[in-house]
Amino acid sequence: MPETLLIPGPTPVPERVAEAMLQPMINHRGEQFTALAREVQEGLQAVFQTQNPVIIFPSAGTGGLEAALVNVLSPGDRVLACTMGAFGDRFAKIAGIYGADVERLAAPWGQAIDPATLRERLQADRDRQIKAVLITHNETSTGVTNPLARLAEVVREHGALLLVDAVSSLAAIDLPTDAWGIDVVITGSQKALMCPPGLALMSVGPRAWAAAETAKMPRLYWDWAGFRKEMAKLQTPYTPAISLYYALREALRMIGEAGLAAVLARHAALGRACREGVTALGLELLADPRYYSDTVTAIRVPPGIEPAALRKAVRQRGVIIAGGQGPLTDSVVRIGHLGHVTEADLRAGLKALREVLADLRGQGGTADARTGS
Amino acid sequence: MPETLLIPGPTPVPERVAEAMLQPMINHRGEQFTALAREVQEGLQAVFQTQNPVIIFPSAGTGGLEAALVNVLSPGDRVLACTMGAFGDRFAKIAGIYGADVERLAAPWGQAIDPATLRERLQADRDRQIKAVLITHNETSTGVTNPLARLAEVVREHGALLLVDAVSSLAAIDLPTDAWGIDVVITGSQKALMCPPGLALMSVGPRAWAAAETAKMPRLYWDWAGFRKEMAKLQTPYTPAISLYYALREALRMIGEAGLAAVLARHAALGRACREGVTALGLELLADPRYYSDTVTAIRVPPGIEPAALRKAVRQRGVIIAGGQGPLTDSVVRIGHLGHVTEADLRAGLKALREVLADLRGQGGTADARTGS
Repeated sequence: MPETLLIPGPTPVPERVAEAMLQPMINHRGEQFTALAREVQEGLQAVFQTQNPVIIFPSAGTGGLEAALVNVLSPGDRVLACTMGAFGDRFAKIAGIYGADVERLAAPWGQAIDPATLRERLQADRDRQIKAVLITHNETSTGVTNPLARLAEVVREHGALLLVDAVSSLAAIDLPTDAWGIDVVITGSQKALMCPPGLALMSVGPRAWAAAETAKMPRLYWDWAGFRKEMAKLQTPYTPAISLYYALREALRMIGEAGLAAVLARHAALGRACREGVTALGLELLADPRYYSDTVTAIRVPPGIEPAALRKAVRQRGVIIAGGQGPLTDSVVRIGHLGHVTEADLRAGLKALREVLADLRGQGGTADARTGS
Repeated sequence: MPETLLIPGPTPVPERVAEAMLQPMINHRGEQFTALAREVQEGLQAVFQTQNPVIIFPSAGTGGLEAALVNVLSPGDRVLACTMGAFGDRFAKIAGIYGADVERLAAPWGQAIDPATLRERLQADRDRQIKAVLITHNETSTGVTNPLARLAEVVREHGALLLVDAVSSLAAIDLPTDAWGIDVVITGSQKALMCPPGLALMSVGPRAWAAAETAKMPRLYWDWAGFRKEMAKLQTPYTPAISLYYALREALRMIGEAGLAAVLARHAALGRACREGVTALGLELLADPRYYSDTVTAIRVPPGIEPAALRKAVRQRGVIIAGGQGPLTDSVVRIGHLGHVTEADLRAGLKALREVLADLRGQGGTADARTGS
């Protein structure tokens, strides 16, 4: 039985994209690769909404966060990490491991970062000690989308570099990189880009390139300078993940055919449908309603029901949903609705959830009745 | 026209392996993934000839070298890097970037590392300052295979950690990891493992695990500790490159069906056939004949012929060969004969080379005649 995959990534890979990987292996120093790299680069700039080059690493998204940090920072640099979930924490943690002086501006899990609070903190930094601000556009662990347009404006007022983790938002939630003046935007192949996992992608703006020239954190694999030199020839400093390039080219063609605006609108509709469906089942959402994510919905599991048992029962109906992370492990389940997830997939997920809840509540009711008898 | 790929990687991907990537995307935290990871792990331990766990990173091979270094070393640690080509240089360079105190034991490009010279250097290290020795098993840039059994013995006498770059040797040239006592062996997916590029793989022995506990080089993406914790559950600390796992499982099945000994023998026969074919054309090989590689043959291009022109003409006959690297760019071409490269592929390559040489030598003769007239 083919399962319906409703997790925040990896997301279902369209048949066209999977079949693109059947194309023959090629020399990564030859003309076929440069043609492939050129088309991928153009497609990426369109979805990143940028004129900046987009660097592609053979890597998971986590490596993309590491790459962004080590290219613009030196040990001891002050970094303000805006955290409100597991992935914001990871971004901050990596910066600290490499010796940055990390200050956290934390919001509770389920909340967004408040632009006014960020402005207050940055205005207090009168001598501009803060070199970079880290923001998670869409926090996958809580289903919250930060008000990035306003946060970016606040960071630009201050002048720090702005690094944005857009792993679970890019190509699903509007992110006009250049219009919002974001220095580095990072994403992964296995989310809204509809590819298998294995590529980290990041756009790098002029201020970030300049910072890289003096940044002292150690790097070779992640070093942008090696890419800059080779990208001029449409090549890479080491062997690129060619089959995933094939997949990505096809996925970018699909996005281009539909139009980015339509793709974003489809995600908005899916997000709304998921929230309506879930609340119609009497369930509560974790996120602040002002900042609901259109790619991931985090659901509070009702008292008396184990999230693991809920997910297992849903899976027995052929639908895979995700558990909670960190402090939410015992209280939350999550539905991913991004990339190639369809309305039909979502309906199947909501149906499975309805049936399972009826069963579990029925058992609970029975148990209550027994206790009361 | 399908081209014949005779480069040292990426290598041709067998149809079975490519088609394995069509399997549906799955949850990397679910049971299907753990079954996949278990089979891959068992298959890898067989080709690495080890009981040690094999860690898989979404990464190019270069990232594998970086990962090995940063997990066992601290800034300031003394490292002896045995270099005799581009990839030995890269291994040494990464160690230096992360602050190791790197001493090079260099052999000329085309030569192997001499066990007696290595012994002499290590015996002079009476107070055991050298923490790790780096060796490239098969130097892809020169077509030289180091006498690793003897080199490993010398390193064991001293007691330093031994890190081996086996990117272009593992599963093609015999490398009994445990029997030779090698602490870390690193390879990539796109060479003899017959998969697309995108995975770096490394076996980690008990002494390397112990070193990782105190090693201070900064790391999160490459951190073995995260893998150790998750591998106990057959999971990974961040999203694995699932389509490449599918490919790898199928490739490991193919190796298992043929038997590793037969696969190694096939590479030995291909290597011999390549060298015989090339020398029959009147060409000279770069490598010291005692250390010819069975996966890559580096050929000296005769005076008066441009390597780039030679490769272009060969390509016009449907065969892709590689150029020289670094100081060999203007004097060498290379043929890769590893992974799924067949005898027929090699014959096609030698035929194209013969025809092109006849053409180019004919032109040269004409030009000489003209000059003489």
